[in-house]
Amino acid sequence: MDVEARLKELGLALPEPPAALGDYRPWVIAGPLLVLSGQLPVTGGRVLHPGRLGEISDEQGRAAARLCALNALAQIRSALGDWDRLETILRVEGHIACVPGWTGHPGVLNGASELLQEVLGPRAGHARAAFGQVSLPMNAAVELVVTAALREEPATPPGS
Amino acid sequence: MDVEARLKELGLALPEPPAALGDYRPWVIAGPLLVLSGQLPVTGGRVLHPGRLGEISDEQGRAAARLCALNALAQIRSALGDWDRLETILRVEGHIACVPGWTGHPGVLNGASELLQEVLGPRAGHARAAFGQVSLPMNAAVELVVTAALREEPATPPGS
Amino acid sequence: MDVEARLKELGLALPEPPAALGDYRPWVIAGPLLVLSGQLPVTGGRVLHPGRLGEISDEQGRAAARLCALNALAQIRSALGDWDRLETILRVEGHIACVPGWTGHPGVLNGASELLQEVLGPRAGHARAAFGQVSLPMNAAVELVVTAALREEPATPPGS
Repeated sequence: MDVEARLKELGLALPEPPAALGDYRPWVIAGPLLVLSGQLPVTGGRVLHPGRLGEISDEQGRAAARLCALNALAQIRSALGDWDRLETILRVEGHIACVPGWTGHPGVLNGASELLQEVLGPRAGHARAAFGQVSLPMNAAVELVVTAALREEPATPPGS
Repeated sequence: MDVEARLKELGLALPEPPAALGDYRPWVIAGPLLVLSGQLPVTGGRVLHPGRLGEISDEQGRAAARLCALNALAQIRSALGDWDRLETILRVEGHIACVPGWTGHPGVLNGASELLQEVLGPRAGHARAAFGQVSLPMNAAVELVVTAALREEPATPPGS
Repeated sequence: MDVEARLKELGLALPEPPAALGDYRPWVIAGPLLVLSGQLPVTGGRVLHPGRLGEISDEQGRAAARLCALNALAQIRSALGDWDRLETILRVEGHIACVPGWTGHPGVLNGASELLQEVLGPRAGHARAAFGQVSLPMNAAVELVVTAALREEPATPPGS
């Protein structure tokens, strides 16, 4: 599946990958792993639906999670140049700022997982874990920590 | 050590590995890594000792952590088919729903680490990190995020 | 760059790597990954600036984050013996105990990231993610979860 064609079909344009908020890198590649920094629901330098789940609606949380996933895709494309080397999304950790007693994590994070499925198809296949936090950077309601597995770089064909 | 024999010796039966709560996979294998989704203290579709540490007892939290570890072992067996390819448990991240000021994380998580030691012996050897959360999915008191390292699949013997 | 010389130049002495708080290992190596257990701002068995951000100052949080990073460097040296095999710090997850509404995560964690840069130079280059927690072990204000990528062990030179 051609990911760029799929994005066009879905009417999605990947944003500029958000810059780091401090003295670190937006992503690091080591061997077959691509490790992304935490992705926030940032667009145009502003956070979508800031605050805590339980105070903002689950539907707003879902939209924030979806935007985090879109930013993660933008980082992956920026890291790899194209989509050929992406083998699979390995893990998505979903951190959700929330009030005590709120337990809607799975529904909110499906906003991210479903976007990954729509765009990447079988290569979206990720393990997931969900947590409810006191607060996140920039007062974001959701933060995703995404790790991807890469295919080996194609070896120079023998005889070339 | 034969892990199945050890389980029998300990009087432990691994449960059915819990299903995913959303649009993700219970585990993903990529190269030498087995990445599990977050494991909750679920048995028969219900959460053991729900709530927050500080409101439930540390002993209940320990039991919940142990059940998370049992579910993690069930996922590993389901992912690998048997125990031969498991090299070692690499990391256990222990997320504990708790009230402010509660700091009994190490004791609660020992409920998980000790179970892994009893069942896997030297292959249990994991790094660990512990956090106190606002809330976890299904109002669980404990969630474990487990990563394991795998042995290379045995190559076809030369000449065969 | 010689890391030991650099430490001396900066006037830094790495502490004894803190012992595990339970039945787990301070670090595990599997293939090209070095996985550290959570590092707390512990020195001489005591926690520097315990409590929650929002109650302690951001400057105290920064100092705690820096001490966590120093302990992480001590664990890495203890795991590898020297610095030759360290390829790069892959990921730093910064967990910060805080009160609701506090959002100074990036500044506090820069205390850790800047120390890693000062000591390791280009090999410090890490992805980062930040979270606000209810509580951390030993009532620590900061906990770092560090993963590093290793160079392959030098093969025996041909003919030797």
